[in-house]
Amino acid sequence: MVQSSPGENRIIAMTFHINTVAVVGVGLIGGSLALSLKAAGSVRRVLGVGRSKANLEQALSLGIIDEVVSLEAAARADIVFLATPVAQMPSVFAALKPHLAATTVVTDGGSTKQDVIAAARASLADKFSQFVAAHPIAGTEKTGAAAAFATLYEKRKVVVCGEPDTDTRAVELVESMWRAAGADIHRMTASDHDDVFAAVSHLPHLLAFALVDMLADAPRADDYFKFAASGFRDFTRIAAGSPEMWRDISAANRFALREQLTRYRQKLDAFDGWLATAAAEDIAQIEASYARASAARNAWQRHIEHGEPLPKFTSGGET
Amino acid sequence: MVQSSPGENRIIAMTFHINTVAVVGVGLIGGSLALSLKAAGSVRRVLGVGRSKANLEQALSLGIIDEVVSLEAAARADIVFLATPVAQMPSVFAALKPHLAATTVVTDGGSTKQDVIAAARASLADKFSQFVAAHPIAGTEKTGAAAAFATLYEKRKVVVCGEPDTDTRAVELVESMWRAAGADIHRMTASDHDDVFAAVSHLPHLLAFALVDMLADAPRADDYFKFAASGFRDFTRIAAGSPEMWRDISAANRFALREQLTRYRQKLDAFDGWLATAAAEDIAQIEASYARASAARNAWQRHIEHGEPLPKFTSGGET
Repeated sequence: MVQSSPGENRIIAMTFHINTVAVVGVGLIGGSLALSLKAAGSVRRVLGVGRSKANLEQALSLGIIDEVVSLEAAARADIVFLATPVAQMPSVFAALKPHLAATTVVTDGGSTKQDVIAAARASLADKFSQFVAAHPIAGTEKTGAAAAFATLYEKRKVVVCGEPDTDTRAVELVESMWRAAGADIHRMTASDHDDVFAAVSHLPHLLAFALVDMLADAPRADDYFKFAASGFRDFTRIAAGSPEMWRDISAANRFALREQLTRYRQKLDAFDGWLATAAAEDIAQIEASYARASAARNAWQRHIEHGEPLPKFTSGGET
Repeated sequence: MVQSSPGENRIIAMTFHINTVAVVGVGLIGGSLALSLKAAGSVRRVLGVGRSKANLEQALSLGIIDEVVSLEAAARADIVFLATPVAQMPSVFAALKPHLAATTVVTDGGSTKQDVIAAARASLADKFSQFVAAHPIAGTEKTGAAAAFATLYEKRKVVVCGEPDTDTRAVELVESMWRAAGADIHRMTASDHDDVFAAVSHLPHLLAFALVDMLADAPRADDYFKFAASGFRDFTRIAAGSPEMWRDISAANRFALREQLTRYRQKLDAFDGWLATAAAEDIAQIEASYARASAARNAWQRHIEHGEPLPKFTSGGET
């Protein structure tokens, strides 16, 4: 349907071919992986598992999946990709376990990793080494099989979080699959992953939701929404997201999220102190903070827009 | 150069004609007002005042202004529009005062109103009644005369904050001018104005700046900016703004800003408590807050995109 990306990934994609991939949860994330693997000629047959019969029938008619199967049958595919909400994964792992073939690799696309790994470890037990935790950094606001498209993962990052006891060949298989879908692979510990995404995704979502809820609940709420303009629109766009999904992510990653939230609250305490005195040196602190933020934000914008290298922010981090 | 908008505003614009408007600070805000009044045929002559000779010459060559004048000469125009940074306004008021003609109306376009009114009251003294505080809710990221365009204010809101001792005819003149520029007029007290814009603009800016500064200063900053994606991009877009301008706004509106910041910090304290226990009822509180925010944000989006009426958020507010 859609051609895979040219260049390096295409060459790797040509070398990757697998017999069957089972997608559990055939929505935007799962369906797009299926379509991209098919477009790359990397999979012979895609099996679909899901709770909504209508959605699975649509996935069949759109050519996203070739067959609807049970979790028991999915457990014998070469790769089982879990693209359900994170909250459903424990029960999916438990249902897969008794039927899991020794050569089957299980992987997921969840937004949090330590909790999914813990669930996999608990349910898969002696078969845990067959599980590879991963997180594709891609998505749109749309959901369901009809939202899937073959180029969703092109040049997007996929974070792969292997554990010490994860089978090395399983990790390589999952990474090859994502490369075939056009993605760039980044290995990271689950703990680092959860910290990074608490900082750049989960905390911003919480902050945006919190602001809109606060304003909607205020005595002058009607005026607030009447006079809100483009800055507010951009700042609060992520507060339009699914409350259930972000509740699950916030709860699943609550330790890392609370660490970021604590640092942020300390930052706001400092701002409050500076505004309280409004002394020249305190106003200068406000300006200094705004200036550091503006410089970092503009450098990042040039990076994502024009590919300029990011500045080195910290001595401890990697570039 | 550019036609004014058709319809109701055009009819009002036809009835509004003034001899001279002096623009102090011929950038995006001041220059666009000049261009829109010229396009509407509502002004005979626009005088320009500024500190940058190069910018004024560009404004002349672009037909934004007809003549460069001193503040002393500007003080004899029919309307003097102050479009300088808010921090410069006290000295502009002081320089205008000795030369201000009895029929001249002074107005401004600053983002905060109580502080500008206090400065005008202090400097203009017995001529304070000739001053009308106003705030056009429009702008782009660009600055300088070259950024000005005639349609900037079309269908945008202008908040007009008359004081009890403001001359009624002066208010009506300023409102007619903004209508001629295509804007919709909203009257509000300066105190209400500053509260509303603390809530929907100044606090979101502070929050976005604070987050980016916190992340740039973190041990894992390089990873944060490497994996930041589209949600982060939108949430932090306003953190790319001018540190000096937002320092001035934060300081000028610090009382209203601190009130909003205090409420917000209380909200974050609640989130921290809910995440700390992760008890079912606390996770339900998180979901409830996210759900209220998502519903409000989506209703607001339908309002600005499709003109749907906003829901009634509060019993005390106006719809």
